[in-house]
Amino acid sequence: MFSRPFAATATATAIALVLAASAGASQAQDASTIRTAEQLRDRALSSNVALDYVTQITTRFGPRPAGSPAETAAAEWAAEYLRGLGFQNVRIQEFPLVGWERGEESVAIVGPHAQRLVAAALGHSIATPAEGIQAPIVRFTTLAELMAAPEGSLAGKIAYVDAGQLIPRENGAGYSPLAYLRAAGPTVAASKGALAFVMRSAGSDEHRMPHTGTTAYVGGKVAVPGFALSAPDADQLSRIVAMGEPVTLRLHSTAHTYETTSRNVIADIPGRTRPEEIIVLGSHMDSWDLGTGAIDDAAGGGITVAAAKAIAEHGRPARTVRVILYGSEEVAQPTDTGNGGGAYLRSLTPEELANHVFTGESDFGADRIYALGLPIGAKDSDFAKAAARVLYPIGVLPSPDPELHGGADIGPIVEAGVPVFGLNQDGTRYFDLHHTADDTLDKIDPAQLSQNVAAWTALVWLAADSDVDFRAMRPTEAAPAH
Amino acid sequence: MFSRPFAATATATAIALVLAASAGASQAQDASTIRTAEQLRDRALSSNVALDYVTQITTRFGPRPAGSPAETAAAEWAAEYLRGLGFQNVRIQEFPLVGWERGEESVAIVGPHAQRLVAAALGHSIATPAEGIQAPIVRFTTLAELMAAPEGSLAGKIAYVDAGQLIPRENGAGYSPLAYLRAAGPTVAASKGALAFVMRSAGSDEHRMPHTGTTAYVGGKVAVPGFALSAPDADQLSRIVAMGEPVTLRLHSTAHTYETTSRNVIADIPGRTRPEEIIVLGSHMDSWDLGTGAIDDAAGGGITVAAAKAIAEHGRPARTVRVILYGSEEVAQPTDTGNGGGAYLRSLTPEELANHVFTGESDFGADRIYALGLPIGAKDSDFAKAAARVLYPIGVLPSPDPELHGGADIGPIVEAGVPVFGLNQDGTRYFDLHHTADDTLDKIDPAQLSQNVAAWTALVWLAADSDVDFRAMRPTEAAPAH
Repeated sequence: MFSRPFAATATATAIALVLAASAGASQAQDASTIRTAEQLRDRALSSNVALDYVTQITTRFGPRPAGSPAETAAAEWAAEYLRGLGFQNVRIQEFPLVGWERGEESVAIVGPHAQRLVAAALGHSIATPAEGIQAPIVRFTTLAELMAAPEGSLAGKIAYVDAGQLIPRENGAGYSPLAYLRAAGPTVAASKGALAFVMRSAGSDEHRMPHTGTTAYVGGKVAVPGFALSAPDADQLSRIVAMGEPVTLRLHSTAHTYETTSRNVIADIPGRTRPEEIIVLGSHMDSWDLGTGAIDDAAGGGITVAAAKAIAEHGRPARTVRVILYGSEEVAQPTDTGNGGGAYLRSLTPEELANHVFTGESDFGADRIYALGLPIGAKDSDFAKAAARVLYPIGVLPSPDPELHGGADIGPIVEAGVPVFGLNQDGTRYFDLHHTADDTLDKIDPAQLSQNVAAWTALVWLAADSDVDFRAMRPTEAAPAH
Repeated sequence: MFSRPFAATATATAIALVLAASAGASQAQDASTIRTAEQLRDRALSSNVALDYVTQITTRFGPRPAGSPAETAAAEWAAEYLRGLGFQNVRIQEFPLVGWERGEESVAIVGPHAQRLVAAALGHSIATPAEGIQAPIVRFTTLAELMAAPEGSLAGKIAYVDAGQLIPRENGAGYSPLAYLRAAGPTVAASKGALAFVMRSAGSDEHRMPHTGTTAYVGGKVAVPGFALSAPDADQLSRIVAMGEPVTLRLHSTAHTYETTSRNVIADIPGRTRPEEIIVLGSHMDSWDLGTGAIDDAAGGGITVAAAKAIAEHGRPARTVRVILYGSEEVAQPTDTGNGGGAYLRSLTPEELANHVFTGESDFGADRIYALGLPIGAKDSDFAKAAARVLYPIGVLPSPDPELHGGADIGPIVEAGVPVFGLNQDGTRYFDLHHTADDTLDKIDPAQLSQNVAAWTALVWLAADSDVDFRAMRPTEAAPAH
């Protein structure tokens, strides 16, 4: 259940006082817009649109790998669903993609301590030879350690990196080092002569659930097969290695790539007075193949669709609110032509791009939003004050960090200059489920999902029914990466 | 972490007063035996033997299906381990078994809403034809509903029973109805003409973890293939059925039986003054194939081995303490010659059997013991008072119900007249893990495991260093089944 975890803290009390003191100033921006945002926020807390969308898409289509028949069917269904909700100008934007299929796979210890391990190939991993790969492992505990291995030292071996459990954090900061290991691992292992790369999953759970996810391909191809073990299996393998005996693994995978297409679903709530100015709400349609992609990212679709629908029900705001359910977020590298965000960017004329006034992305599960990030120059703006006032009662505080990126789907338009906001979700349990078979509908807490819809509805209304120039809130120079 | 959950309740307070009042009487049984039991209890709380045993057996051998090479190797290793701990008369008792191997398996929805489901064949299930079984499903919500289906009404169909989630209870009472469904399902489905039987797993978790377990075979053979879906997959299938459209499943399994052998490992702490009188501490060595059998039942082995070892370290009690690590508890039906408990019973002469003075079994995970059950006539005995006094400080209260059964391993000797005690473990989360891939070492809480060892050490000492006749505490007529 959703609750306001900060409400009892001294910090939150102090902030509340500041907000109360500044209420007069923020109302100056547009008192009726703020009042509407508050009404929309409260109504959204009891809306069922998001849960209905998530339930239907995960149930009807199950897993929706990019470029698969399930993703295609889900996109067609979603377009109809959006038309049924009253969205305008609903269209499907198709683009080519190199898809990836897992096929059959197995990982086992052979010889002494023979036993099957629960593992999954990393996305875009190549197949093993048909007879598999059977070789001793060499264990490392960090990517740096693997990188420091002498050239050729892993010839005929399998590199195994157990970098420990992902550290669960509200802001998801524990993911980066392990995502980087997953991306670089096969390439680095191959450079030392290794036949394959095996890692502990980038996850925070202790279930027999491997976490897949894309690894880096160079020249379109992953260097050697890559696998992730579930946490209990990584524990097991590391314990056996610690016994001091050599350990031999047998790896088998029939993973392969194929030519296919993916598609973005685009739908508008046209603006009342400045329809050419567009606010893009992003999320993605595709999912990994192991689960049904409920938290990653049917939830984001449900949240943004429900928010736009709630706004439309109230009456159209000044600007156009555009929902994009992107195809192919998971598999293609950001620079790849098979990436949904890139395909959308390439479809825009320079003038259209310049009229993209604001964007945000919902792709971090379905747990409560706890902070709002805005462009760096927005800090003391009336817009920021109004947003803080409207979002505080549902547990959202201003983020101390400026929002610079947004996420993978809207990344290309953000890189191209579109200002971005972040409604930051609690990621504490996200990496228990992320990219696993356990990413299913039952993991979504309807009350927290509704809080997401409330925050999106209120914030997007404030931005859409205004003439605030968010580009003016961006730094004049490129912001430092962080 | 272990804590005393009852300590603050009025009931517990009342019981404590009664215990204090009766302390004089119970000391009359044998004050030094009670003092020793208390010392052994406290020392066991910091013993590492149980955790070491569980860690080694689950790590070295992984899953240990009855009759598999892993079970055989684990038995040989355990015999050496027990000799190393100073047990006497360590021996391996081999017996024939019809083993069962899962092979490859898959379950998928085909046609509309095509998607793969996570499922596992039930133990002893027969294979599907090589091309699989593809047929529409008919959904039921109880076994009674399936039994009420007209004869022939399931011809050409797959029977699907979603009887809901297992209700988690401290005493495990939620298991019985679903275990009965699992046992009877394929036979009943076949009697209505069904091609196969599919059920929601008998489990209380919401993970993509099917719970396997044996189904009943009639004339040595299960009637039709049987599968258990994980809870999220059962949710999914039932949601699709609720959409009102016909649903077709495709089932595939290469499961098969084979002739093999299993074995009991038997080890004694010989009695000091009445070595012919034997107290049997039971648990089982075999596990299901999906997990590494940490809670089911390496934990029971660790607890009973550690308790007997702690007693031996103190000095031999009057009677012999016998640890039996039974083979083949999971797969064979209790009446089957391939059952470890039956094989042990058959190895005894009538005189040996008559000298089995007491027995208990640890086979319900590794969570804390909360109650002690004794034979029906023990209620007001000095032994019961002494046991209550020694166990109360570690959170164990007398059970209001007499102990009549013990468990599947010791079942045959209990049926043959051996008095039984029950150190009842908290089963609230047992069925989250039971018979799944998630039954792994990390699920064991070392503090709760140690509390188990403390309770077993203290109780077994009290019984072993006494001349209490537990047979005299049994009812003169057969106790009513409950």
